[in-house]
Amino acid sequence: MSRRTVFFVSDQTGVTAETLGHSLMTQFEGLEFRQLTLPFVSTLDKAREAVRRIDRAAQEEGLRPIIFSTLVQDELRDVVMTANGLFLDLFSAFVGPLERELNTRSTHRAGRAHGIADLAAYTTRINATNFALANDDGTGGDYAHADVVLVGVSRVGKTPTCVYMALQYGVFAANYPLTEEDLEAARLPVRLEPFRGKLYGLTIRPERLQQIRYERRPDSRYASRAQVQYELRAGDALFRRYSIPTLDTSESSIEEIASRIMNSTGIERRLPL
Amino acid sequence: MSRRTVFFVSDQTGVTAETLGHSLMTQFEGLEFRQLTLPFVSTLDKAREAVRRIDRAAQEEGLRPIIFSTLVQDELRDVVMTANGLFLDLFSAFVGPLERELNTRSTHRAGRAHGIADLAAYTTRINATNFALANDDGTGGDYAHADVVLVGVSRVGKTPTCVYMALQYGVFAANYPLTEEDLEAARLPVRLEPFRGKLYGLTIRPERLQQIRYERRPDSRYASRAQVQYELRAGDALFRRYSIPTLDTSESSIEEIASRIMNSTGIERRLPL
Repeated sequence: MSRRTVFFVSDQTGVTAETLGHSLMTQFEGLEFRQLTLPFVSTLDKAREAVRRIDRAAQEEGLRPIIFSTLVQDELRDVVMTANGLFLDLFSAFVGPLERELNTRSTHRAGRAHGIADLAAYTTRINATNFALANDDGTGGDYAHADVVLVGVSRVGKTPTCVYMALQYGVFAANYPLTEEDLEAARLPVRLEPFRGKLYGLTIRPERLQQIRYERRPDSRYASRAQVQYELRAGDALFRRYSIPTLDTSESSIEEIASRIMNSTGIERRLPL
Repeated sequence: MSRRTVFFVSDQTGVTAETLGHSLMTQFEGLEFRQLTLPFVSTLDKAREAVRRIDRAAQEEGLRPIIFSTLVQDELRDVVMTANGLFLDLFSAFVGPLERELNTRSTHRAGRAHGIADLAAYTTRINATNFALANDDGTGGDYAHADVVLVGVSRVGKTPTCVYMALQYGVFAANYPLTEEDLEAARLPVRLEPFRGKLYGLTIRPERLQQIRYERRPDSRYASRAQVQYELRAGDALFRRYSIPTLDTSESSIEEIASRIMNSTGIERRLPL
């Protein structure tokens, strides 16, 4: 089967075009795509270069590429539209209906999506990220300033979730790894006690955790079936005992875990949308 | 002026709808919007609840809300479409043209966008995040395994950029903060020497850095005009001396900084799109 190229073209990072475009392409199973992002297409020269790359792909593959564009400026879009491909304009498709609904003309100005964050938002993001790093894996322990404290056994997804919550929502997320001592004692460590209302438990299916740990340390006790089952059983019992809300991360991406925590706890995002 | 509510409705996290929708709304200056995300609308019950919330907002504000939807399943979309609002379907608008172009029916299956990452990708993301944390701020120093090492003075954006690159691209990014000793000596520390090809300099306008540092430690030498100017001048000189590629982060979001580094270095993403 011939492979088709998909281009994501943006005057910014291209992440929006990538995300929506990828979500659309996964609806077509059994087809093979090569995905290329052309970010920062913000001048006529770069727009023409994008056209050359798209046309070359069309020629080499004998199939015209698919182009997901979030270009905002008419003059850049007009250039890229001349490329030999199916041009899908994620932006303009909705500007018309919005202009009619809001009875207002849009500015068509570039660089608004991920533009210059105002200083307060930028600082919040840096502070939240630094907080996540300083209070990762049981270190730091500044739970008084945390919005949420993720609790769970090793490799259940705590660290990436905390960091993602900092970057995406500006939320101050700490995490604490349940130790063997905690699990044996079947109690939370004393220093977490005052912050029980902020705790959020992560759990996972034993087979999945075994896979993840095996990738890290094959043939170790750490990755053994017995150890993994013991830790998860003891951890889940601890969550029940203290009535800690819990999420099973087995089927979830980091984005989903973070979003579900935000949604179920009602923690407010500290970053503007 | 009356405020209008904008809903982002998704069967997943809603981040795609938020990003594209927000990018569209910023095109309408001078209007005030209240933005609400309704994630994980994955059952008929939740779809009906979404309709109730949208209808309530319409009634309270006397203006019908705007709805950005990335719902994939027809039966859920059909419900949410009945709400009293302007329904903008970020998904369906493009499925038709894609079906014709690819000569293939789409699956209309939910949960494909941020679905279960395969184990390899999930592990890469965790490993890259752990690497960023372990090699942050001059600690760790495992530059041999880094894809890139960000260098710059304090508060120029190194840490959040490294962490974002880990989560978004699976890239192993370390960072090293230029110390006063480095700046005075006008040389790179010896342990960075073998990895000169991986270095990437971040710089920033003095006024901006002063603002950022002032938020952290007001009225300190650290945030003083003289100190900031000295550090940046010495840092920039160091970058020139060693021919280190450099980016000015003054006008950029974390996403932009990361994307520009990827784009200009040609580092390959380790995560599938």
